[in-house]
Amino acid sequence: MKIITDEEKIDEILSRGAEDIIDRENLKKKLMSGKQLNIKFGIDPTGPKIHLGRATILMKLRDFQDLGHKITLIIGDFTALIGDASDKDSIRKPLTEKEIKENLKNYLSQIGKILDLKKVDVRHNKDWFGKMKAEELIRLAMNFTAQQMIQRRNFKERWDSDKPIGVHELLYPLLQGYDSVVIRSDLEIGGFDQLFNLKAGRELQRAFNQEPQDVMTLRMIYGLDGRKMSTSWGNVINILDDPKDMFGKLMSLRDELIIEYFESCTRVPMIQINEFKNSLESKSVNPKEIKKILAKEIISFFYDKKKAEEAEREFEQVFEDKKLPSEIEEVEINEKKMNVLDLLVKLNLASSKGEAKRLVEQGGVRAIKGDKVQELTDWQLEIQIEKGLIVQVGKRNFKKIA
Amino acid sequence: MKIITDEEKIDEILSRGAEDIIDRENLKKKLMSGKQLNIKFGIDPTGPKIHLGRATILMKLRDFQDLGHKITLIIGDFTALIGDASDKDSIRKPLTEKEIKENLKNYLSQIGKILDLKKVDVRHNKDWFGKMKAEELIRLAMNFTAQQMIQRRNFKERWDSDKPIGVHELLYPLLQGYDSVVIRSDLEIGGFDQLFNLKAGRELQRAFNQEPQDVMTLRMIYGLDGRKMSTSWGNVINILDDPKDMFGKLMSLRDELIIEYFESCTRVPMIQINEFKNSLESKSVNPKEIKKILAKEIISFFYDKKKAEEAEREFEQVFEDKKLPSEIEEVEINEKKMNVLDLLVKLNLASSKGEAKRLVEQGGVRAIKGDKVQELTDWQLEIQIEKGLIVQVGKRNFKKIA
Repeated sequence: MKIITDEEKIDEILSRGAEDIIDRENLKKKLMSGKQLNIKFGIDPTGPKIHLGRATILMKLRDFQDLGHKITLIIGDFTALIGDASDKDSIRKPLTEKEIKENLKNYLSQIGKILDLKKVDVRHNKDWFGKMKAEELIRLAMNFTAQQMIQRRNFKERWDSDKPIGVHELLYPLLQGYDSVVIRSDLEIGGFDQLFNLKAGRELQRAFNQEPQDVMTLRMIYGLDGRKMSTSWGNVINILDDPKDMFGKLMSLRDELIIEYFESCTRVPMIQINEFKNSLESKSVNPKEIKKILAKEIISFFYDKKKAEEAEREFEQVFEDKKLPSEIEEVEINEKKMNVLDLLVKLNLASSKGEAKRLVEQGGVRAIKGDKVQELTDWQLEIQIEKGLIVQVGKRNFKKIA
Repeated sequence: MKIITDEEKIDEILSRGAEDIIDRENLKKKLMSGKQLNIKFGIDPTGPKIHLGRATILMKLRDFQDLGHKITLIIGDFTALIGDASDKDSIRKPLTEKEIKENLKNYLSQIGKILDLKKVDVRHNKDWFGKMKAEELIRLAMNFTAQQMIQRRNFKERWDSDKPIGVHELLYPLLQGYDSVVIRSDLEIGGFDQLFNLKAGRELQRAFNQEPQDVMTLRMIYGLDGRKMSTSWGNVINILDDPKDMFGKLMSLRDELIIEYFESCTRVPMIQINEFKNSLESKSVNPKEIKKILAKEIISFFYDKKKAEEAEREFEQVFEDKKLPSEIEEVEINEKKMNVLDLLVKLNLASSKGEAKRLVEQGGVRAIKGDKVQELTDWQLEIQIEKGLIVQVGKRNFKKIA
């Protein structure tokens, strides 16, 4: 197997989107040596959807895969029993086996959109921890002090604010670290909040007389609105999102995040990105135009160029020209007349009459017939059901009566 | 089996030498119910010798045994792999299997001096922990927070003074607590520093839907010199000590500890002890006389009355009448002349020449020949070796040249 040792490429991989590297010099030397490295990436199967924040790590792994290195993906089906505290400020409820299995089901197909799965070694850490005895775990624990563990970012915050930290949570970093021993990892890559766990791998490898892995963490990617990415805040793009949704969401990105997204979530060369940066700073361009380029780049990566262009056209039609979308789902309805709330539920534009009522009262519901548009603001209204009637909720949701 | 429910007896057992009882009312009710209780006592086989401090706990267990209750002795042969931190201010080096075995060897014979071993259920916690899987241990850990653990006395002190606490040490209380679950303990008895561990048993029993055990800790017994008992300070009486040694050591007890020793280490009725207390406080008696009574009580308990009286006579002969002891070990020496330091080492009166020099310089070494006594204060002195020459170090150590 040919390993690519192009120094310029390696330097870009090691700098773009990187937060910490330990130890950078050693890692570069290993990458330049022509030897195939075993690169570890661990995932905790806690949520079924991969968002753009996590995707940046997978894209970095793809970079290393393209250089010819081996990626070992650790599915933390055992560690999920504990739950990592990295991105939580309270004790996480451990997952059941059933939840873990369901979470995993479509995980790999999502990862397959970024990594070449044929070349990925997929391991489940239950294979070794399921058999591990309590005594072995205690011996692993002897390599760390409570003080070291509490110093960890999220524990420290919880400690200082008197929020409980489960004793079992202190065991998590050493389990994750032991994974590195089992697979003899050369390099581990993780999110900005994983530095502590990744370094635990180095400690345990030393304890087992292995050369400690290098570690690389990537910068945090903020949500579209500049806050932390969180599904519950709706500021997240999932890599399985519909291209049209992705486009719309990315157009709502805060301007100051555009360059960061280009750097971490696309393959656009840094030279080009720096040009965008300059034009944005000198205000010689409307940020909206740069965001369109960003959106097309991201959609092209996860789908293809055609889908990206379609999504752009659709967006321009609906939001810029205020035209109706080119395709609207049609629904058959037998009633002659319906209360507006019942209609919204029937058309799947609201999940309940309560939600429907809220939508109506907020003023986001319209009935469109030909070129006549009626704002529906009275939830007691009875609507005449006619073929061709279009109901619109918010900016992007339409249904047509068949 | 007849269970004794004499309220007066029970009240005395629950108060004499007790530090904490949780929950006293519930425990008394159980003891009065006539039901046989399963009383747990755990030992960590870290040192082969039982001293008077630990013996007080065994004596309390004997009290319960005499009421008809069952004692379950947990030999912590698994937990010794971790090492309890209760009486340590630093990380304890875990014991090897071999050390544990050797420590255990004469442990039971010592315990047999106090408890009726035929009625004791002896369990080794390796029997359950040896088979336990890492996953089960993690699930146990879920019942405690790191904060609770750190609050524990010795951890707290180490935490506050930045001394390392091993992550594995945080697991100790929950292992000890799980022992209570396995044997379905009704009451656990331990030293003053065990309250935290004993309460952990309550927590885990609740988690396993068992009625939580009551717990009883006993007061700390100070060493002869008023400091903490410590073998390295020589202020400890071991229950295997020779009766004459016991007597001599107890006569060196600090006066203010006399009453405490009577209460915790003898069966002398409290009425009698209070009389001693009054005479001591009013100075109507020489404390030395009360100490003789104490020494005889303790020796009678661990040996018999005859041995106690012999020891007293011996003490009076050597220390009060300044007579030589009735029996002195003889040692054969072939040299004609020896340096005093070499002689002390040869006679086993000093463990090294360095120690011998210290003893000589401190003025505690004498040569006795017939009724001639020579104080040996010059460590360069050459001694004429003659049959019948007695060498004395300190008050109580004699050797004779054969």
